[in-house]
Amino acid sequence: MFIAPTKHTVNAFDADLQELNRMIAEMGGLAERQVIHAVAALLKRDCGRAAGVIRNDTILDSQQSAIEQRAIATIATRQPLAVDLREIVAVLRISGELERIGDLAKNIGKRVVALNSWNMPQQSLRGVLHMTNLASELLKNVLDSYVERDSSKAVKVWNGDEEIDALYTSLFRELLTYMMEDPGIIVSAVHLLFCAKNIERVGDHATNIAESVYFIVEGRVLEGVRPKVDSTSSIAFTSRAPSVAPTAW
Amino acid sequence: MFIAPTKHTVNAFDADLQELNRMIAEMGGLAERQVIHAVAALLKRDCGRAAGVIRNDTILDSQQSAIEQRAIATIATRQPLAVDLREIVAVLRISGELERIGDLAKNIGKRVVALNSWNMPQQSLRGVLHMTNLASELLKNVLDSYVERDSSKAVKVWNGDEEIDALYTSLFRELLTYMMEDPGIIVSAVHLLFCAKNIERVGDHATNIAESVYFIVEGRVLEGVRPKVDSTSSIAFTSRAPSVAPTAW
Repeated sequence: MFIAPTKHTVNAFDADLQELNRMIAEMGGLAERQVIHAVAALLKRDCGRAAGVIRNDTILDSQQSAIEQRAIATIATRQPLAVDLREIVAVLRISGELERIGDLAKNIGKRVVALNSWNMPQQSLRGVLHMTNLASELLKNVLDSYVERDSSKAVKVWNGDEEIDALYTSLFRELLTYMMEDPGIIVSAVHLLFCAKNIERVGDHATNIAESVYFIVEGRVLEGVRPKVDSTSSIAFTSRAPSVAPTAW
Repeated sequence: MFIAPTKHTVNAFDADLQELNRMIAEMGGLAERQVIHAVAALLKRDCGRAAGVIRNDTILDSQQSAIEQRAIATIATRQPLAVDLREIVAVLRISGELERIGDLAKNIGKRVVALNSWNMPQQSLRGVLHMTNLASELLKNVLDSYVERDSSKAVKVWNGDEEIDALYTSLFRELLTYMMEDPGIIVSAVHLLFCAKNIERVGDHATNIAESVYFIVEGRVLEGVRPKVDSTSSIAFTSRAPSVAPTAW
């Protein structure tokens, strides 16, 4: 006779968790769109679209706050066991990652205004677009892996970040070369570098989410050497010829 | 006769919370030292010290993980009420902010290697040091405000971030001017810009912690317009004469 109330409690918890999952999926969808819109605004120098991205960031902030409140209420009323608590803590972590992705998109939006009247190197813009496509794919896949509780998909995302890092490193070198060749583009190139860095960090946040997904599905930490290396921190050039600091690549 | 076990439970929760506070203070102290050491390594071009900062980052990661596990265990065994749960959720948030501060310090450490053989503009290095002193003061004060549950101190930190942002904006313009005047320093100036951006973000994380402290002490969200504005995203130069995009400053 104890089964019914226990089941009732479990079902109530599951319903709460399902609602939290729905909220994460909604927030994740918006975060993904924010990144795509911010970069589209950058490529087309569309200040109106950039302003929309900046405005919409408050929605992500509200969504994170609502998720946190709902998560706290779920713990307080359902008093879940440790294994279920990990799910809730993962929800809190993931919403935090999504909120930061939103901040990165907003920051790109702000730079669009500054870059509006500048000629950007077309090849570098294509590089940023390529990075963005990869990052938004990672983000989409990691959110799917969360909804489907698919740890192998999460591992794939975790490994996929490497390609974005490689693209970022190549773009970093390319933009530095352009700046040395033509100091007139320095301001726009620096803003574009920061935009690219933001996209690279979106990839990092996707891998952080992948780690959370892996943990809740498998009950253990994702092992192996983390693939993410932003190699640009060790890029040094000699005069005008790009070279790499040998100790740190 | 129900008082004793209730009190026992409350005391057990308080003891757990005290232990979590101790862990946060310890982690916060290390995060603060990591930032200071990273910038000291940058200023003195001390690769050995920078390598130490990079190595120590794993300690912060372990500390965050230990705090998370302890927080989950506390919720599972003590089943705290909503108001106490907010404390635990704040602990999770704060440890996340500290972990990210550690990442920023590590990133500065990595750039020291690349910058080792470069002459940096002395004035800009002084600017970075000034920013760092302010950021580490904010971090120290916000950790004190957490330990002392002092919301007015937290509000002071929240407002104090503005000065770091202003310094960063000024440094950003200065470095862009140097780069345009002497393309030979572009690589090192770009790395220094990223280091400065990292310090600026340490200030942001300190204000995020301040918001968490305010919330757990006052039970409501810190109101008012958030002072933080990284104005550099709207900096545009015309030719070699610094000017500011009028619409976005």
